[in-house]
Amino acid sequence: MTVKIPSSQHPRVVIIGAGFGGLELAKKLRNKPFQVILLDKNNYHNFQPLLYQVATGGLEPDSIAYPIRKVFQGVKNISFRMAEVQNIDSESNCIQTNIGSLEYDHLVIATGSKANYFNFDSISDQFMPLKSVPDALNLRSYILQNFEEAIATNGEELPELINFAIVGAGPTGVELAGALGEMKKYIFPKDYPELDLSRMRIMLFEAGDRVLPAMSAEASAKAEKYIRQFEVEVYLNTPVSAYSGSELKTDTGDVYRTDTIIWTAGVQGAHPEGLDPKSIAKGNRILVDNFNQVQGYKNIYAIGDIAAMISDDFPKGHPMVAPVAIQQAQNLAKNLLSRKADKNPTEFKYQDKGSMATIGRNRAVVDLPGFKFQGFFAWWVWMFVHIISLIGFRNKLATLWGWAYNYFTYDRAMRLIIRPYKRRKHDPQTEKEETAVEA
Amino acid sequence: MTVKIPSSQHPRVVIIGAGFGGLELAKKLRNKPFQVILLDKNNYHNFQPLLYQVATGGLEPDSIAYPIRKVFQGVKNISFRMAEVQNIDSESNCIQTNIGSLEYDHLVIATGSKANYFNFDSISDQFMPLKSVPDALNLRSYILQNFEEAIATNGEELPELINFAIVGAGPTGVELAGALGEMKKYIFPKDYPELDLSRMRIMLFEAGDRVLPAMSAEASAKAEKYIRQFEVEVYLNTPVSAYSGSELKTDTGDVYRTDTIIWTAGVQGAHPEGLDPKSIAKGNRILVDNFNQVQGYKNIYAIGDIAAMISDDFPKGHPMVAPVAIQQAQNLAKNLLSRKADKNPTEFKYQDKGSMATIGRNRAVVDLPGFKFQGFFAWWVWMFVHIISLIGFRNKLATLWGWAYNYFTYDRAMRLIIRPYKRRKHDPQTEKEETAVEA
Repeated sequence: MTVKIPSSQHPRVVIIGAGFGGLELAKKLRNKPFQVILLDKNNYHNFQPLLYQVATGGLEPDSIAYPIRKVFQGVKNISFRMAEVQNIDSESNCIQTNIGSLEYDHLVIATGSKANYFNFDSISDQFMPLKSVPDALNLRSYILQNFEEAIATNGEELPELINFAIVGAGPTGVELAGALGEMKKYIFPKDYPELDLSRMRIMLFEAGDRVLPAMSAEASAKAEKYIRQFEVEVYLNTPVSAYSGSELKTDTGDVYRTDTIIWTAGVQGAHPEGLDPKSIAKGNRILVDNFNQVQGYKNIYAIGDIAAMISDDFPKGHPMVAPVAIQQAQNLAKNLLSRKADKNPTEFKYQDKGSMATIGRNRAVVDLPGFKFQGFFAWWVWMFVHIISLIGFRNKLATLWGWAYNYFTYDRAMRLIIRPYKRRKHDPQTEKEETAVEA
Repeated sequence: MTVKIPSSQHPRVVIIGAGFGGLELAKKLRNKPFQVILLDKNNYHNFQPLLYQVATGGLEPDSIAYPIRKVFQGVKNISFRMAEVQNIDSESNCIQTNIGSLEYDHLVIATGSKANYFNFDSISDQFMPLKSVPDALNLRSYILQNFEEAIATNGEELPELINFAIVGAGPTGVELAGALGEMKKYIFPKDYPELDLSRMRIMLFEAGDRVLPAMSAEASAKAEKYIRQFEVEVYLNTPVSAYSGSELKTDTGDVYRTDTIIWTAGVQGAHPEGLDPKSIAKGNRILVDNFNQVQGYKNIYAIGDIAAMISDDFPKGHPMVAPVAIQQAQNLAKNLLSRKADKNPTEFKYQDKGSMATIGRNRAVVDLPGFKFQGFFAWWVWMFVHIISLIGFRNKLATLWGWAYNYFTYDRAMRLIIRPYKRRKHDPQTEKEETAVEA
């Protein structure tokens, strides 16, 4: 079966993935002499940096997800198809998807990344990732389910229910720890007055020697101070080594009881099958040249998290963050047009605009090129940058109003278990036989 | 296992269900000399009258669901437990739940209603009910999934994908038909320009001879006119008789192709096990006296949809609507206090405050006692009544802002397939062997 697409006299660009990169590329090719087919397994673009706020009841999922069709309403040269790509057949310039096969003149892989569980792959269903809207809703449900379960037993029998472990102290881990800390301080005591919340623990484990390892030492130090103010326990130089389903072991030999492990320790590329294994780099990313062209292919490109553009400046490729994806998309759009006009393409140059993370109300850390600051003003900058980065007027306004509400009421109103999450639970009989893995 | 509850010297009132009735009763017993235990299988109260707006992308689920714990923050004599009640043991004044057993002095059953599929019970999983937030989200997903599937084949092969049947023309059926009609007019042509939407059909089937049978003839006539303006096909005196998975047959012998059947044709009581079968009336409701006391039991009460209070004025019991539940809750709260003070209880008297339904933008029908009106002003009244009935400032404001956005943009922004819905699909091989049932 072939996916039906309106006929066009223009060359066809098929973009796989409507994340930051894929969506930006399609936008830049609006009303240009290409037929653009944008594919995504979801019918919405998902603003990943705010998923942790959905997970902690601070924002509705609808505020950070945006229907892709709405972005391209009235645009004649762009068609969206909700599809999962199963295979790339570069010989015949064709991809196989769950809705049929589709030919391309140019193929752009913008499939992003997924959680990397490293040696824990076999028990990864014990961990909660935070990469998608369903992930965030599952986590929101699971936190609340565990509190409900704890109160049913007065929290005496199962201390692990109100203990939360976060593995990985990158921005997602740190921001989530801060949000949980806020809930511990402002929400849970009011919702669960019968529980002794001094026994609730939020534990952040990091294999490296500081939180936010990709940011400045100043930002790391301040961020650690801020999350500790929310009674988050920070364990640095502490890789985790085993999990039994209720007990987490670390390399240091310590054991922590917890029913919930949020895994933010690493990501890896998530690409469709069919590319030459030689084009795949470490971390499952696709090797590209300075023009985002996939090594060994003339008309296949990769942008964003999935692309590994190795250079002296970036020996491991660029950081897997939204600004890289967006800038690569912009450059690739230009190059597709240049190529069409027989002009020389432009090499990609990353403009590092800085990075930031927020920790609870009134606190953030910001690293700009040549200018680092933390605290209240940083928090305003963080909010401003995230609001303007959201797609669409509705989502901007909905998020702004959600934040204003949260700020003035000290509330996080979306404490709803809409779809209970069922984790494959440990069997109490075999609990002692924990799954040991090497870290 | 016994559910752990703080000790109290006051008699214990256990309320099963935090719908309109159960929640109102608990509110009225705030800081009164009772220990109130409120149970619900969900951790939120769900504003059922607006579920159809969630199903059609007009409101976030978070705007019409409200965390129960938030309602009772700081209230010392009320405890909430998320639990499903499995059995009532009236001999020992005890209920069994999935989190343990619980003793009561007074038991109030406020478990509401569920869809009644009548003779279609065996194939009820082919129909989509609209009684809960997950129901609404499933329907939202399924409508959009079917559009995505239709466009993958250009809508040529499977006309049933963009046809929608609603069985039952009560308020939910009529309001949903209007909302789908609005989407057909304002949203789908922009989202799916490649589909021929003149082929999309919205079909409303009603066994009776008019839509909104519980309202005035005037309201019925106007409502039918309004939905027909949105190109909804209205089939009166048309019970459905069989469904093959893609073809719906009616008693009139006609066949309609559709992949989606929304079932709003009837409800029945949803009560826990353990009551004397003699206490159960037609439609699975519990027989109560004029004080909402369950027949044959001294300390068990039923309120709202689940209660059948038979009288000359209401030979089939009261209508299964929110105002009855709320008023019965208020009366029962008074009577529990009277009984405690050895005073005579008061009989329940229903104050009919009227009923209303809305059809798309600018149109509604309102029946007040002695005053009927339809059209633009009715629509304002409808909005006002629904906004003030929502629980909590946040949900009121969120809904108001959502409606303002929808009104001015002609948009319904929540067109998100967050969790795809998987209907047990018909097997094309056996499609001809339809499940025949008697209507």
